[in-house]
Amino acid sequence: MLDRFKNHIVENFSHLGREAFVLAISGGVDSVVLAHLCASCKLDFELAHCNFHLREAESDKDEVFVRELADSLGENLHVTHFNTQDYASEHKLSIQIAARELRYAWFKELMQERNIKTLVTAHHADDNLETFLINLSRGTGIEGLTGIPEMTDSISRPLLKFSRDEVLSYAQEQKLEWREDASNQDTKYLRNNIRHTIVPRLKELHPTFLDNFLKTQEHLIDTLKINQVYLKELKERLFIVEDGQIKVATAALLNLQPTKSYLFHFFREYGFTQWEDILGLLTTNSGKEVQSPSHRLLKDREFLLLQEKTSKNDNLYEIHEGTSEIRVPFSMKIDEVNQIEKFSQKVLYLDKETLKYPLILRKREKGDYFYPLGMVGKKKLSKYFKDEKFDKFSKENQWLLCSGNKVVWVIGKRADDRFKITESTKKIVKISLV
Amino acid sequence: MLDRFKNHIVENFSHLGREAFVLAISGGVDSVVLAHLCASCKLDFELAHCNFHLREAESDKDEVFVRELADSLGENLHVTHFNTQDYASEHKLSIQIAARELRYAWFKELMQERNIKTLVTAHHADDNLETFLINLSRGTGIEGLTGIPEMTDSISRPLLKFSRDEVLSYAQEQKLEWREDASNQDTKYLRNNIRHTIVPRLKELHPTFLDNFLKTQEHLIDTLKINQVYLKELKERLFIVEDGQIKVATAALLNLQPTKSYLFHFFREYGFTQWEDILGLLTTNSGKEVQSPSHRLLKDREFLLLQEKTSKNDNLYEIHEGTSEIRVPFSMKIDEVNQIEKFSQKVLYLDKETLKYPLILRKREKGDYFYPLGMVGKKKLSKYFKDEKFDKFSKENQWLLCSGNKVVWVIGKRADDRFKITESTKKIVKISLV
Repeated sequence: MLDRFKNHIVENFSHLGREAFVLAISGGVDSVVLAHLCASCKLDFELAHCNFHLREAESDKDEVFVRELADSLGENLHVTHFNTQDYASEHKLSIQIAARELRYAWFKELMQERNIKTLVTAHHADDNLETFLINLSRGTGIEGLTGIPEMTDSISRPLLKFSRDEVLSYAQEQKLEWREDASNQDTKYLRNNIRHTIVPRLKELHPTFLDNFLKTQEHLIDTLKINQVYLKELKERLFIVEDGQIKVATAALLNLQPTKSYLFHFFREYGFTQWEDILGLLTTNSGKEVQSPSHRLLKDREFLLLQEKTSKNDNLYEIHEGTSEIRVPFSMKIDEVNQIEKFSQKVLYLDKETLKYPLILRKREKGDYFYPLGMVGKKKLSKYFKDEKFDKFSKENQWLLCSGNKVVWVIGKRADDRFKITESTKKIVKISLV
Repeated sequence: MLDRFKNHIVENFSHLGREAFVLAISGGVDSVVLAHLCASCKLDFELAHCNFHLREAESDKDEVFVRELADSLGENLHVTHFNTQDYASEHKLSIQIAARELRYAWFKELMQERNIKTLVTAHHADDNLETFLINLSRGTGIEGLTGIPEMTDSISRPLLKFSRDEVLSYAQEQKLEWREDASNQDTKYLRNNIRHTIVPRLKELHPTFLDNFLKTQEHLIDTLKINQVYLKELKERLFIVEDGQIKVATAALLNLQPTKSYLFHFFREYGFTQWEDILGLLTTNSGKEVQSPSHRLLKDREFLLLQEKTSKNDNLYEIHEGTSEIRVPFSMKIDEVNQIEKFSQKVLYLDKETLKYPLILRKREKGDYFYPLGMVGKKKLSKYFKDEKFDKFSKENQWLLCSGNKVVWVIGKRADDRFKITESTKKIVKISLV
C-alpha cells in the first residue's frame, strides 16, 4: 500500500519533490496518512494545524496529538487558534463555512510569510463523491457536480484518487495512530449519513464505481472549462464599456438560447439572482430596472446598462481653498490665473469672489437647479437632463461642482451664470479636467 | 391527485389538446395512468402497444390486457409483434437496446402513416434519476447525466415531473388495474437495485430531493446546449472542406484547452475513440494516421486530414465497350472520334486497338507501374506519386483508368505511353472528365 501511494506521488506530483510546501493537518486519519506519506517520500514540508475550539477538550487533545506527531516526524509545525463560533455568528455563516474561511485565510497568510507556493490537503475520492451527493440533494448545476480538483495553481491533493478505504488500509498497514472525530460516527449529519448509508450501496453497483465517478468528474470539469472559455469570449464581445458604464445589446442576448441560462452566466458575478425579471427586462420599456445588492441593470432603448451602485457617502468630496489638484473621484486641477487662456468643455473659469469654500463635488439631488450660462433665468437640473436626453445612468453619473448648495458647473457640460468672469472679476479660478 | 395531473397537462402540455397523438402503452402502471389521464382530459389519441415476446405467456397476457383497456377507454389501438431476441442476436445488441430500437422505429412508422406529429410516453422523474445513477455508476459525461427531456419536437412526457409514488397513488385513487412486470421486483437487475435500495435513501436526504434533482438536470441541459452551440460554431470554423476531404489546422486544435476534450467533441461522430493517439498525431510527423471503423485521420504537415474510408469493393468499376457515359464514381464521357480536337488535363485520346475491354476504374494497388507519356521506360506509380508530392490521402484518392492490369491514365494527371495515338491509329477513343 505504501508503495502504491509513493508511486502515485512520484508519477503525478513531482513538483512536491522540488519545493517546500505546507501540509494541512487535522489529526484525522486522512491528514495523518498524508503527513506520513510525505515524510516517507522525504519531501520538504511544514505542518499547519488549526484549533477551531469547537469540541472543547477534544479540540485541545487534537492539538496535543498533532504536536507529538510533528515531533516524531521531525517536521516543523505551525498552530493557530480560532474562536470559530464567534466568527460564524458575527458573519452569519454556518460553522462549516466559517471554519473553512478561517482556515484558508490563515493558510494563505502562512504561505506568504514562509514564501511557500503550495498547500497540500488530504482530500480523497470519497470526499468528492459525498460533496457531489450533498449538492445533488440540494439541487445544483454542473459546478456543484465537478468536485474538488486534484491540482490547482496553489493546492495539491495527492490522495484525491484514493478511496477512504485505501487511506484507512494505509494507516492500518503502517500502524499509524490518529484522532477520531466523534461526530463522524453520527449519521444525523448529512455528510455522514451519505457516507454510511448511500455510498457503500453505490459502490456495489459497479466494481470500479469510484474510479468511474472520478472520470465522470474529469469529463464534467472539461465541459465546464470549455463552457467558461466560450462564455468569457462571448461576454467580452457583448459587454461594451462606454462612458464608464457597461452596455449590452438586448437583441444579442435574445439571440442566445436558452437566454435565461446565458443571463445567469453573464450577470451572476454582479450579485443578480432574479433571472425571470432580467429576462423580462429584455423586452420591456426603457427605464425599467433590476437591482442586485451591488449593481443596477437598466433597460435603455435597445440596450441593458449595467452600473455599480455607489453609496451616498461615497459621493461627496470637498475641495478646500488652496487645493491645486484632486485625483478622486476623478482628476481635476484648480489654479488661480491672471487671464482666460482658452475655452474648452474641459475647462471652466470662475470669479473667485463668488465662490464659497470648500467647494463640493457631488451627484444631483432632488430639487437641484441652476442658471445655465447664456440663458436668462434658472432651470431645474431635471429639466436640463431631459432636454439634453441624458439616460438614467448618465443622470446619476453626472458630477456637479457646487458652491455651498449652488450648482457652479454641470461638469464638462454646462456652467452656471452666477459664477462667470465679469469685468469686475479680480481673481480668476481655473478648473481643468485632466 | 387526478386534478393535479390534469392541471399539469393543461398548463404545460396544451399542444396535446390541439392535435391527435400516439400514446405508447405497455400495460404497466405508468402508461395505464397516462392513458387514463389523457382520456379524462378528453384528449384525442391512439394507443400503440409492442409485444416483444420476451416473457412468453406473460407478454401475450399484457397484450390482451391492453386490448381490453383500449376497449374500455374507447380508444383506437395499434399492436405490433417483435422477435426481439433474434433482432438482438442479429445486430449484436443488448435486449434492452434492441427493444428500444424496434419500438421507436415502429412508433415513427406508425406516426407517419397516421400523419401524427407527437408521441407521448409515460416516463416519470424516477426513471430519470435511475438512469442518472446507472450512468454515474459506469462513468459518463454531462450527456449521461442530463436525462430524458420533458418535451422534444416529437415526444412529450407529461409525467416527467411526477415521482413513481405519485403515479402509483393516482392509480390507486382511481382504482386502476395494470400489469406487473415480474422482473421489476428482482433486485438483481441494476435498475431495480437502484430503485429499491438507493433511491429511497437519496430521497431521505432532502424533503424535495426529486424536484431538486430535476432542476439540476434542467441546468445541465442548459449547459449542454450552450456547449453544443459553441462547439458547432467552432467546428464549422476549423473544419475546412478542400478537395473532397476535411482539413483541420493542428495549431488551432492545440490552442484549445483541454485539447483532448475538444478532440473528443470534434471527432467522435466519425467513430474515433483513441483520444490519446489523436492528441499525439497533432505533434507527430507527416504521414502518421489514426483510423476509426469508418474514417481515417492523417497528419499532413500543419494539418489533420479527415477522410471517409471506402471499401475495396466500392473501388472497382468496369466500363464496357460502347458505354458513352458513366456517372459513378465520377462523371466521365467516352466517345469514338475521328480526330484529336483539343488537349487538356481533363481529356485523353487513346488508340482503341491497344485497349482491352471492359476498361477498369480503380485506385492504386501495390506494384502498379506505368510508362509515363513522353518519358522513356516505365516508372513505379509509388515513385511517381512521391516525385509529384502527393500526400497520403491524395494517393489513395487518385483514380486510375486501366486496361486489364495496365495503367492507361493516372486520371487527370498523366497518361501512359503505350495507349497513345500514333500514325497507325485507326480508331480514336476520347475520354473526357465532366
